[in-house]
Amino acid sequence: MRLLEEMILSKGKVYPGNILKVDSFLNHQIDSQLMFAMAQEFQRLFRDEKITKVMTIEASGIAIAVMTAYVMQVPMVFAKKSQTKNLSADVYSTQVMSFTHGRVYDVKIAKEFINSDDKILIVDDFLANGVALEGLCDLVNQAGASVVGAGIAIEKGFQDGGNRLRAKGLHIESLAIVQEMNDNGTIKFLSKQ
Amino acid sequence: MRLLEEMILSKGKVYPGNILKVDSFLNHQIDSQLMFAMAQEFQRLFRDEKITKVMTIEASGIAIAVMTAYVMQVPMVFAKKSQTKNLSADVYSTQVMSFTHGRVYDVKIAKEFINSDDKILIVDDFLANGVALEGLCDLVNQAGASVVGAGIAIEKGFQDGGNRLRAKGLHIESLAIVQEMNDNGTIKFLSKQ
Repeated sequence: MRLLEEMILSKGKVYPGNILKVDSFLNHQIDSQLMFAMAQEFQRLFRDEKITKVMTIEASGIAIAVMTAYVMQVPMVFAKKSQTKNLSADVYSTQVMSFTHGRVYDVKIAKEFINSDDKILIVDDFLANGVALEGLCDLVNQAGASVVGAGIAIEKGFQDGGNRLRAKGLHIESLAIVQEMNDNGTIKFLSKQ
Repeated sequence: MRLLEEMILSKGKVYPGNILKVDSFLNHQIDSQLMFAMAQEFQRLFRDEKITKVMTIEASGIAIAVMTAYVMQVPMVFAKKSQTKNLSADVYSTQVMSFTHGRVYDVKIAKEFINSDDKILIVDDFLANGVALEGLCDLVNQAGASVVGAGIAIEKGFQDGGNRLRAKGLHIESLAIVQEMNDNGTIKFLSKQ
């Protein structure tokens, strides 16, 4: 998606350790008009699917997921990273390693919000090693529902998550795939056909 | 706001300890169309203010905040509850007690995302004792920026946060104010003039 690639080039910052910081428009400060444009693009890319629900994981996936759900006119549900008093004990649960935070999270979703006939689009801001996405697929599978695909804002194409999950048959659409980035700030995208 | 009150009555659940569970449409599963309607209502209520940015705190404020920012055509920024490797060291920081989670959080926002000339609307899903809202006001004040008001989905009118902060001069608009609720499920709203 041209608009997203341009924003990454103009506002993204590369840090050592393959960190791409896009917190001025994607995951700390949020460009609300960009969220809407990305949501419309996910609608176009998954137009052949009958999606009943959009799913993401807190916190930085929520903005793009709720906008996608709004455009698709379906509900959104987000998986929670820690047990809270307000979360029903009746949950599906899985474990996800966060490399950003250097710890393992219990990721949970209330059972009542995934039905076995749901066709779920998973939406997230980043795809790198794919463990968060795998965790969300696991929660959907526990419910006996279907994952119709995953809509990702930025995929780090030089990490293996995207290709590993595509090889398993998951339909992933990433709006920008970073093929290469260097500490001097150069960012190269994978061109789409 | 009639629509929100009706959803609270039809889908909200009251639990002992004054817990109002609205996680089927507001803060776990999210009714994306309701978010848009609430955003439009905030725009109407704050139409006399020149708002430059919408601010909230992760995680459950993000959905309504990004939709409000979209309708108002401004950026949204959300305060983060814990230090992450990807968050700049150059942050404004404050402490907020979470009664839901029974712990104190460091709440942070990158300095670069609040400018001294910003006029900020704070948006959140709940207002009860007001400590989260006060924390967000504190972050804005540290930046020398202005809080033009706070747009809240549900205010627990029987807790003191709303009135305490109104007495300090904060312009708060709550779309539903719960005046009374009982374990048998009765919920009474404060009627607006």
